Amino acid sequence: MKVVIAPDSFKGSATAKELCSAIAKGIRSVMPEAELLELPLADGGEGILDNLVHATGGKRIEAAATDPLGRAMTAAYGVLGDGETVIIEMAQASGLPLLTAEERRPLLTSSRGTGELIKHALDQGYRKFIIGLGGSATNDGGSGMLRALGLQLQDAQGQPLAEGGGALSKLAELDDSGLDSRLAESRVTIASDVTNTLCGPQGASAIFGPQKGATPEMVAVLDEGLRKFAEQIHAIRGIDVLTLTGGGAAGGMGAGIAGFMNAVVRPGIEVVMEASGFAAAAKDADYIITGEGKLDEQTLSGKVAAGVCGAAGPLGVPVIILCGMRGLSIGELSQLGKASAFSIVPGPCTLEEAIAHTTEWTEAAAAQLFSLLKNSS
Amino acid sequence: MKVVIAPDSFKGSATAKELCSAIAKGIRSVMPEAELLELPLADGGEGILDNLVHATGGKRIEAAATDPLGRAMTAAYGVLGDGETVIIEMAQASGLPLLTAEERRPLLTSSRGTGELIKHALDQGYRKFIIGLGGSATNDGGSGMLRALGLQLQDAQGQPLAEGGGALSKLAELDDSGLDSRLAESRVTIASDVTNTLCGPQGASAIFGPQKGATPEMVAVLDEGLRKFAEQIHAIRGIDVLTLTGGGAAGGMGAGIAGFMNAVVRPGIEVVMEASGFAAAAKDADYIITGEGKLDEQTLSGKVAAGVCGAAGPLGVPVIILCGMRGLSIGELSQLGKASAFSIVPGPCTLEEAIAHTTEWTEAAAAQLFSLLKNSS
Repeated sequence: MKVVIAPDSFKGSATAKELCSAIAKGIRSVMPEAELLELPLADGGEGILDNLVHATGGKRIEAAATDPLGRAMTAAYGVLGDGETVIIEMAQASGLPLLTAEERRPLLTSSRGTGELIKHALDQGYRKFIIGLGGSATNDGGSGMLRALGLQLQDAQGQPLAEGGGALSKLAELDDSGLDSRLAESRVTIASDVTNTLCGPQGASAIFGPQKGATPEMVAVLDEGLRKFAEQIHAIRGIDVLTLTGGGAAGGMGAGIAGFMNAVVRPGIEVVMEASGFAAAAKDADYIITGEGKLDEQTLSGKVAAGVCGAAGPLGVPVIILCGMRGLSIGELSQLGKASAFSIVPGPCTLEEAIAHTTEWTEAAAAQLFSLLKNSS
Repeated sequence: MKVVIAPDSFKGSATAKELCSAIAKGIRSVMPEAELLELPLADGGEGILDNLVHATGGKRIEAAATDPLGRAMTAAYGVLGDGETVIIEMAQASGLPLLTAEERRPLLTSSRGTGELIKHALDQGYRKFIIGLGGSATNDGGSGMLRALGLQLQDAQGQPLAEGGGALSKLAELDDSGLDSRLAESRVTIASDVTNTLCGPQGASAIFGPQKGATPEMVAVLDEGLRKFAEQIHAIRGIDVLTLTGGGAAGGMGAGIAGFMNAVVRPGIEVVMEASGFAAAAKDADYIITGEGKLDEQTLSGKVAAGVCGAAGPLGVPVIILCGMRGLSIGELSQLGKASAFSIVPGPCTLEEAIAHTTEWTEAAAAQLFSLLKNSS
């Protein structure tokens, strides 16, 4: 019996790796001889670094960087097991978790740290990048990242702009003459599920600004700044990032990358599953177990469980979905193909209890399911 | 694929029959061709009448009876599909649910109604009885039932006693000369899981009296009455019902039956499973599904799920246990043999929500489990 264990994290309660361990422990308690392959997944947001490094047997590299408010820190990126693909998780150096609630100041926060990690990797000779957007604290169109790589931003007086999305509203000129030439030799895959464009009522500032601390007034300033940034990108690069699907991801990071790098945007779960060799690992599996904190309509449109079910379909491998809450009807679940879904909770309980017992209950649920499968064989 | 569906009720939320339907519906949604056999079970208490009549294709018979406080009512008993075994559920005519909270008066409540049902069945020619104890409102040692069948109870002045457990404390003489002679031709199987003896600190009055409305003072009177009843039974029948295991069941009904009928006491679930032909039905099943509202340590000692697992063991058929709350560890569950247990709840919820959605969630749980089994085959 071979089982591929490939859950997402249960946000706020257990990482994908912890869930892999719990599921494996549960299965082993009833099938000690089972061959278990742990492939923690993520949909491109937080966790993508650790999960891909773990899944591919890669390595973490730590480098000096600046945090969203310009403070010195040490941040990590990864090199996958292939030895040539770098995984950059934007949240590592530019993420919201790096700030206290009071420090959420989107006019000032900068994505510079992410650019510093890219530069460090370029210095090591790497030219192939996966950049996981998600969890960013910034709304600067990726301008901070690009400054770290040599882009210059000036106001109407020819003075360098301050960092952050707020200053972009004074942008008058971009100068890419000093841009790191190694970017032109590089290929970037952006892992992102955000389809918002850069500006306007569905843009980065309006939709994601508030969770980064933006008041309605700040949203207006930030939106104006990103628009000026886009106009200048168009002026010197000939690329229209205003109409780009996903340009609004990660505070406009999607647009900034598209303007200056050879990049493709792909759904996070696809990128993660491809990079982690999911299909090869799963093709001779008897079962695939995946999981998500909450299984709901969002699941059906591109989260981890749907990605796993989509990949398992052509392989003909049955999928077991473990979740905290199964919020889909039998009919909706049938859209996921050869899959069945089970909550880990043992009975009525509060959300807090479920969060406190996630790994324990996940282990028990896996044990009971594989006990059933063992009894059936 | 043949599946035997044999749950207990989930007390307070769904009957065993309703659960059978829900489970069957869930299985059919993924395996329309499955052969499903519905055998609602009970552990001998409330529900035993309907479940055995349903499971064996028997019939219900209604008869005039008196309720625990002597009011006229219509109560039911059953004849099993074999056409010769009568099932009497004590709660039908002598049960606590027949009384309001204020009417719980154990000094006065009488088991006469149960005796009237037995008499009705004797009149119809039946001589084989299963009597399910449990849910009784009475603490009269079964004296009311026996009075309906001709036993006479007198005080020291030779006057007939009033009905109820309280009056037994004035008992001076029993006269069984008028006892229905057809009882001697009859065989009675008592379905009961209670092992308490008739009197004393672990006796019927002390342990079960309070839930029937007895104050500590009443418990003393009732205990004294049952003791006198036992002494008189010993005097005229030569049977010591004081030391009888289970004599304290149903307010001393166990002792009363043992004193005057040819009776054996057996665990309720065994009686139910045997009468419903469980073993014959299950021997060629691929799966047995059972269920209990709460799976806990009590389950391991003689409730429905344990009974089903015990019977399934020799047959080698895997058992799936559905429950509201799975309160057993993996280790404890492994004592149940080739069984696995799953809660029906889809995630964190209140007990009230679980109760309100029991059949819907049971259907969904069954659908997901059989989806998994179908995908695995």
